[in-house]
Amino acid sequence: MKKAVVLLSGGLDSSVAIHLAKSEGFEIYALSFDYGQKHNKELECAKATVIKVGAKEHNTVTLQLNLWGGSSLTDSKRDVEDGDVSRTDIPDTYVPARNMVFLSVAASYAEAIGAQDIFIGVSEVDYSGYVDCREEFIRSMENTINMGTVMAVEEGKKIKIHTPFINKTKAEEIKIGEELSVDWSLTWSCYRGTEKPCGTCDSCLLRAKAFKEAGVIDTSLGKGH
Amino acid sequence: MKKAVVLLSGGLDSSVAIHLAKSEGFEIYALSFDYGQKHNKELECAKATVIKVGAKEHNTVTLQLNLWGGSSLTDSKRDVEDGDVSRTDIPDTYVPARNMVFLSVAASYAEAIGAQDIFIGVSEVDYSGYVDCREEFIRSMENTINMGTVMAVEEGKKIKIHTPFINKTKAEEIKIGEELSVDWSLTWSCYRGTEKPCGTCDSCLLRAKAFKEAGVIDTSLGKGH
Repeated sequence: MKKAVVLLSGGLDSSVAIHLAKSEGFEIYALSFDYGQKHNKELECAKATVIKVGAKEHNTVTLQLNLWGGSSLTDSKRDVEDGDVSRTDIPDTYVPARNMVFLSVAASYAEAIGAQDIFIGVSEVDYSGYVDCREEFIRSMENTINMGTVMAVEEGKKIKIHTPFINKTKAEEIKIGEELSVDWSLTWSCYRGTEKPCGTCDSCLLRAKAFKEAGVIDTSLGKGH
Repeated sequence: MKKAVVLLSGGLDSSVAIHLAKSEGFEIYALSFDYGQKHNKELECAKATVIKVGAKEHNTVTLQLNLWGGSSLTDSKRDVEDGDVSRTDIPDTYVPARNMVFLSVAASYAEAIGAQDIFIGVSEVDYSGYVDCREEFIRSMENTINMGTVMAVEEGKKIKIHTPFINKTKAEEIKIGEELSVDWSLTWSCYRGTEKPCGTCDSCLLRAKAFKEAGVIDTSLGKGH
């Protein structure tokens, strides 16, 4: 069985991604991050999803990106602002270089276990203007990984970053998730990390819009809302 | 004053690098990692060097690369082997994707504080076969950073990775360090992290050889050995 490192935040995208990787026959090595995010309750969802999917291993790395903040998600002095789906600028929830950090650590994990496949659930369509969700960035990162690991440079075993949703809308992702029997109640999107999803942050708005477009019932709402 | 993020392990290379960055007029934001290395006493040296240099800020990020090991530096079940300066293969002290992880986190820090300069003390000459010390890798990483940060993509503020020692031998670095009044007793190289440097690991051998070549006395020996 081929091994895959799957980045799993516990949110919607990564939860569908881990189901997809599993359905493609990979042995799953899930990787989560406690990076100082206010909504670290997403990590409880990650743990539950890992059990549901049947991963071989799950590591949660603690990494204090909140030491310097730079985002309303990690800076205790800044509030997460209400979302606005029509905005075109970068929202203050952008976390500097987050996906670069996550993919680098994933590459370290992959090399240590001899995995040549990494999954990340990013989308270039519903990406809130986050530049580190773009295909162009992901391919550059893949190239860098293949220049910076002994496995790739010396042994010719290159690493591939799988981005199954790069050209998909969140609604399309949800439809794929439905086919893969994702349990939506085990996913967490709200940036505020309050007891129940706030319903007004960018992530809550995008999630609600996507479920509506997909014509799928968000089963997390019964519990969460 | 221009801000620079300087990667500082507490070893020889990075300690000279931070002195150099300071001498070039940068305001210093030092960044260290407690990544599960056996020789984390290098971090005590990092703290002392930061005070000596007069950095604006120093962050030490905890990041458990030892969760998956893959290196004798981070795997408690593996011993650090004795060094051999004539070897040409990759020693077991190689830590998967370490510099990629460090530079990614440095990019996050740099973007958060608005710094466009990152210093790393790697050398392509005395690099123990570590592929992530090569110029080719560093330039690819720089390119990736400039595709994956809002600062670079949206605001046109590109980040430069400074590698002042990329073509220097360790002996040449030591000569530069002498001119910059580096206190060698505040640097730690031994991979084993024992009370005194072991004198036989790869890092101890390279250090001793370099000081000899440079004709400089390693002032750490009086205290450490």
